[in-house]
Amino acid sequence: MARAPSRSKPSRSAEPELSIRIDLDEEDALGPGKIRLLELVREHGSISSAGRAMDMSYRRAWLLIDELNRTFRKPLVETQKGGGGGGGAQLTAFGNEVIRLYRAIGVDATQATLSHLQSLQRMRAIGR
Amino acid sequence: MARAPSRSKPSRSAEPELSIRIDLDEEDALGPGKIRLLELVREHGSISSAGRAMDMSYRRAWLLIDELNRTFRKPLVETQKGGGGGGGAQLTAFGNEVIRLYRAIGVDATQATLSHLQSLQRMRAIGR
Repeated sequence: MARAPSRSKPSRSAEPELSIRIDLDEEDALGPGKIRLLELVREHGSISSAGRAMDMSYRRAWLLIDELNRTFRKPLVETQKGGGGGGGAQLTAFGNEVIRLYRAIGVDATQATLSHLQSLQRMRAIGR
Repeated sequence: MARAPSRSKPSRSAEPELSIRIDLDEEDALGPGKIRLLELVREHGSISSAGRAMDMSYRRAWLLIDELNRTFRKPLVETQKGGGGGGGAQLTAFGNEVIRLYRAIGVDATQATLSHLQSLQRMRAIGR
Protein backbone atom coordinates (compact mmCIF):
# COMPACT_ATOMS: atom_id res chain seq x y z
CA MET A 1 0.00 0.00 0.00
CA ALA A 2 1.30 3.47 -0.81
CA ARG A 3 2.33 5.60 2.09
CA ALA A 4 0.45 8.76 2.92
CA PRO A 5 2.50 11.77 3.98
CA SER A 6 2.64 11.56 7.68
CA ARG A 7 5.17 13.62 9.55
CA SER A 8 3.52 15.93 11.99
CA LYS A 9 6.07 18.40 13.21
CA PRO A 10 6.31 18.81 16.94
CA SER A 11 7.44 22.23 18.04
CA ARG A 12 11.09 22.80 18.86
CA SER A 13 10.67 22.64 22.61
CA ALA A 14 8.33 19.64 22.56
CA GLU A 15 9.01 16.35 24.23
CA PRO A 16 9.86 13.55 21.81
CA GLU A 17 6.72 12.16 20.16
CA LEU A 18 6.01 8.69 18.90
CA SER A 19 4.90 8.20 15.30
CA ILE A 20 3.49 4.74 15.01
CA ARG A 21 3.04 2.68 11.90
CA ILE A 22 1.26 -0.61 12.30
CA ASP A 23 2.56 -3.20 9.85
CA LEU A 24 -0.47 -5.39 9.38
CA ASP A 25 1.34 -7.75 7.04
CA GLU A 26 4.00 -7.57 4.36
CA GLU A 27 1.84 -5.35 2.16
CA ASP A 28 -0.46 -3.33 4.34
CA ALA A 29 0.40 -0.74 6.92
CA LEU A 30 -1.57 1.80 8.88
CA GLY A 31 0.25 4.96 9.87
CA PRO A 32 -0.32 8.58 10.86
CA GLY A 33 -0.91 9.78 7.28
CA LYS A 34 -3.77 7.43 6.49
CA ILE A 35 -5.37 8.00 9.88
CA ARG A 36 -5.16 11.76 9.39
CA LEU A 37 -6.78 11.38 5.98
CA LEU A 38 -9.65 9.37 7.50
CA GLU A 39 -10.13 11.98 10.21
CA LEU A 40 -10.25 14.73 7.58
CA VAL A 41 -12.84 12.80 5.54
CA ARG A 42 -14.92 12.58 8.73
CA GLU A 43 -14.47 16.31 9.33
CA HIS A 44 -15.03 17.53 5.76
CA GLY A 45 -17.50 14.91 4.51
CA SER A 46 -15.57 14.68 1.27
CA ILE A 47 -12.50 12.82 -0.01
CA SER A 48 -11.43 15.71 -2.25
CA SER A 49 -11.59 18.27 0.58
CA ALA A 50 -9.74 15.89 2.90
CA GLY A 51 -7.03 15.36 0.28
CA ARG A 52 -6.73 19.11 -0.32
CA ALA A 53 -6.23 19.69 3.40
CA MET A 54 -3.21 17.36 3.15
CA ASP A 55 -1.91 18.83 -0.15
CA MET A 56 -2.84 15.58 -1.85
CA SER A 57 -4.51 15.11 -5.23
CA TYR A 58 -8.05 13.75 -5.30
CA ARG A 59 -6.72 10.72 -7.14
CA ARG A 60 -4.11 9.98 -4.47
CA ALA A 61 -6.58 10.48 -1.63
CA TRP A 62 -9.11 8.25 -3.38
CA LEU A 63 -6.52 5.49 -3.94
CA LEU A 64 -5.49 5.54 -0.28
CA ILE A 65 -9.11 5.30 0.87
CA ASP A 66 -9.76 2.51 -1.62
CA GLU A 67 -6.76 0.60 -0.29
CA LEU A 68 -7.95 1.07 3.29
CA ASN A 69 -11.40 -0.19 2.35
CA ARG A 70 -9.82 -3.33 0.87
CA THR A 71 -7.40 -3.86 3.76
CA PHE A 72 -10.17 -4.33 6.30
CA ARG A 73 -13.16 -6.64 6.44
CA LYS A 74 -15.63 -3.78 5.89
CA PRO A 75 -15.38 -0.36 4.27
CA LEU A 76 -14.07 2.45 6.44
CA VAL A 77 -15.46 5.17 4.15
CA GLU A 78 -18.72 5.21 2.22
CA THR A 79 -19.20 7.47 -0.78
CA GLN A 80 -22.35 8.73 -2.41
CA LYS A 81 -22.72 7.43 -5.92
CA GLY A 82 -23.02 9.75 -8.91
CA GLY A 83 -21.02 12.45 -7.26
CA GLY A 84 -18.36 12.51 -9.97
CA GLY A 85 -15.30 13.27 -7.89
CA GLY A 86 -16.91 15.84 -5.66
CA GLY A 87 -19.53 13.55 -4.11
CA GLY A 88 -19.89 13.29 -0.37
CA ALA A 89 -18.15 10.70 1.75
CA GLN A 90 -18.45 9.65 5.35
CA LEU A 91 -16.83 7.35 7.83
CA THR A 92 -18.63 4.14 8.70
CA ALA A 93 -18.89 2.98 12.31
CA PHE A 94 -16.18 0.50 11.33
CA GLY A 95 -13.95 3.33 10.10
CA ASN A 96 -14.47 5.25 13.31
CA GLU A 97 -13.48 2.15 15.29
CA VAL A 98 -10.22 1.79 13.30
CA ILE A 99 -9.37 5.44 14.06
CA ARG A 100 -10.24 4.96 17.72
CA LEU A 101 -8.00 1.89 18.03
CA TYR A 102 -5.09 3.60 16.25
CA ARG A 103 -5.33 6.67 18.49
CA ALA A 104 -5.61 4.50 21.61
CA ILE A 105 -2.46 2.64 20.53
CA GLY A 106 -0.64 5.98 20.28
CA VAL A 107 -1.76 7.12 23.72
CA ASP A 108 -1.02 3.80 25.43
CA ALA A 109 2.37 3.39 23.70
CA THR A 110 3.45 6.90 24.68
CA GLN A 111 2.38 6.41 28.27
CA ALA A 112 4.17 3.06 28.51
CA THR A 113 7.46 4.47 27.16
CA LEU A 114 7.54 7.93 28.71
CA SER A 115 10.56 7.38 30.92
CA HIS A 116 12.60 5.96 27.99
CA LEU A 117 11.52 8.91 25.81
CA GLN A 118 12.66 11.31 28.50
CA SER A 119 16.01 9.53 28.71
CA LEU A 120 16.45 9.97 24.94
CA GLN A 121 15.46 13.62 25.30
CA ARG A 122 18.23 14.16 27.84
CA MET A 123 20.74 12.57 25.45
CA ARG A 124 19.99 15.00 22.65
CA ALA A 125 22.40 17.72 21.56
CA ILE A 126 21.88 20.95 23.45
CA GLY A 127 20.28 23.69 21.38
CA ARG A 128 19.00 21.40 18.68
CA MET B 1 17.27 14.51 8.86
CA ALA B 2 17.00 12.16 5.90
CA ARG B 3 15.06 8.99 6.42
CA ALA B 4 16.77 5.66 6.27
CA PRO B 5 14.86 2.84 4.60
CA SER B 6 13.03 1.14 7.35
CA ARG B 7 10.24 -1.22 6.51
CA SER B 8 10.89 -4.65 7.87
CA LYS B 9 8.39 -7.02 6.37
CA PRO B 10 6.55 -9.23 8.78
CA SER B 11 5.50 -12.53 7.31
CA ARG B 12 2.00 -12.93 5.97
CA SER B 13 0.63 -14.75 8.98
CA ALA B 14 2.33 -12.51 11.53
CA GLU B 15 0.56 -10.49 14.15
CA PRO B 16 0.55 -6.76 13.42
CA GLU B 17 3.87 -5.16 14.34
CA LEU B 18 4.60 -1.66 15.50
CA SER B 19 7.15 0.43 13.62
CA ILE B 20 8.06 3.34 15.80
CA ARG B 21 9.60 6.62 14.76
CA ILE B 22 10.55 8.98 17.55
CA ASP B 23 10.17 12.59 16.46
CA LEU B 24 12.77 14.30 18.61
CA ASP B 25 11.92 17.74 17.28
CA GLU B 26 10.80 19.30 14.01
CA GLU B 27 14.01 18.23 12.26
CA ASP B 28 15.31 15.11 13.87
CA ALA B 29 13.74 11.71 14.06
CA LEU B 30 14.92 8.29 15.10
CA GLY B 31 13.28 5.34 13.39
CA PRO B 32 13.81 1.69 12.52
CA GLY B 33 16.12 2.39 9.57
CA LYS B 34 18.69 4.42 11.50
CA ILE B 35 18.63 1.99 14.40
CA ARG B 36 19.17 -0.93 12.04
CA LEU B 37 22.10 0.91 10.47
CA LEU B 38 23.66 1.48 13.91
CA GLU B 39 23.20 -2.19 14.79
CA LEU B 40 24.87 -3.20 11.53
CA VAL B 41 27.81 -0.87 12.19
CA ARG B 42 28.17 -2.57 15.57
CA GLU B 43 28.01 -5.99 13.94
CA HIS B 44 30.29 -5.30 10.95
CA GLY B 45 32.68 -2.76 12.49
CA SER B 46 32.40 -0.66 9.34
CA ILE B 47 30.05 1.98 7.96
CA SER B 48 30.50 0.80 4.37
CA SER B 49 29.69 -2.83 5.22
CA ALA B 50 26.70 -1.75 7.28
CA GLY B 51 25.43 0.39 4.40
CA ARG B 52 25.94 -2.45 1.93
CA ALA B 53 23.89 -4.77 4.12
CA MET B 54 21.03 -2.27 3.75
CA ASP B 55 21.60 -1.67 0.00
CA MET B 56 22.74 1.83 0.82
CA SER B 57 25.68 3.74 -0.66
CA TYR B 58 28.65 4.46 1.58
CA ARG B 59 27.90 8.16 1.17
CA ARG B 60 24.31 7.79 2.31
CA ALA B 61 25.26 5.58 5.27
CA TRP B 62 27.98 8.03 6.27
CA LEU B 63 25.59 11.00 6.08
CA LEU B 64 23.03 9.24 8.27
CA ILE B 65 25.67 8.38 10.87
CA ASP B 66 27.01 11.94 10.77
CA GLU B 67 23.49 13.29 11.34
CA LEU B 68 22.98 10.90 14.26
CA ASN B 69 26.28 12.00 15.78
CA ARG B 70 25.14 15.64 15.59
CA THR B 71 21.63 14.94 16.88
CA PHE B 72 22.86 13.68 20.21
CA ARG B 73 25.12 15.16 22.86
CA LYS B 74 27.90 12.69 22.12
CA PRO B 75 28.87 10.64 19.09
CA LEU B 76 27.11 7.32 18.64
CA VAL B 77 29.75 5.99 16.23
CA GLU B 78 33.49 6.50 16.28
CA THR B 79 35.58 6.03 13.14
CA GLN B 80 39.27 5.36 12.76
CA LYS B 81 41.04 8.20 11.01
CA GLY B 82 42.96 7.73 7.80
CA GLY B 83 40.80 4.86 6.69
CA GLY B 84 39.66 6.53 3.50
CA GLY B 85 36.12 5.21 3.27
CA GLY B 86 36.91 1.67 4.31
CA GLY B 87 38.21 2.50 7.80
CA GLY B 88 36.78 0.78 10.81
CA ALA B 89 33.92 2.14 12.88
CA GLN B 90 32.43 1.18 16.19
CA LEU B 91 29.58 2.07 18.44
CA THR B 92 30.35 4.12 21.51
CA ALA B 93 28.78 3.26 24.87
CA PHE B 94 26.51 6.23 24.19
CA GLY B 95 25.47 4.74 20.84
CA ASN B 96 24.73 1.39 22.45
CA GLU B 97 22.55 3.14 25.01
CA VAL B 98 20.53 4.90 22.26
CA ILE B 99 19.92 1.52 20.59
CA ARG B 100 18.97 -0.05 23.92
CA LEU B 101 16.45 2.70 24.67
CA TYR B 102 14.91 2.53 21.17
CA ARG B 103 14.52 -1.25 21.38
CA ALA B 104 13.07 -1.02 24.90
CA ILE B 105 10.53 1.54 23.61
CA GLY B 106 9.47 -0.93 20.90
CA VAL B 107 9.05 -3.80 23.35
CA ASP B 108 7.18 -1.75 25.96
CA ALA B 109 4.93 -0.07 23.36
CA THR B 110 3.99 -3.41 21.81
CA GLN B 111 3.26 -4.97 25.16
CA ALA B 112 1.12 -1.99 26.22
CA THR B 113 -0.98 -2.07 23.04
CA LEU B 114 -1.31 -5.78 22.39
CA SER B 115 -5.05 -6.02 22.91
CA HIS B 116 -5.70 -3.09 20.56
CA LEU B 117 -3.37 -4.63 17.96
CA GLN B 118 -5.26 -7.89 18.19
CA SER B 119 -8.55 -6.02 17.73
CA LEU B 120 -7.18 -4.44 14.55
CA GLN B 121 -5.98 -7.86 13.40
CA ARG B 122 -9.50 -9.22 13.73
CA MET B 123 -10.82 -6.31 11.65
CA ARG B 124 -8.58 -7.06 8.69
CA ALA B 125 -9.81 -8.50 5.43
CA ILE B 126 -9.77 -12.28 5.42
CA GLY B 127 -7.06 -13.75 3.22
CA ARG B 128 -5.00 -10.58 3.00
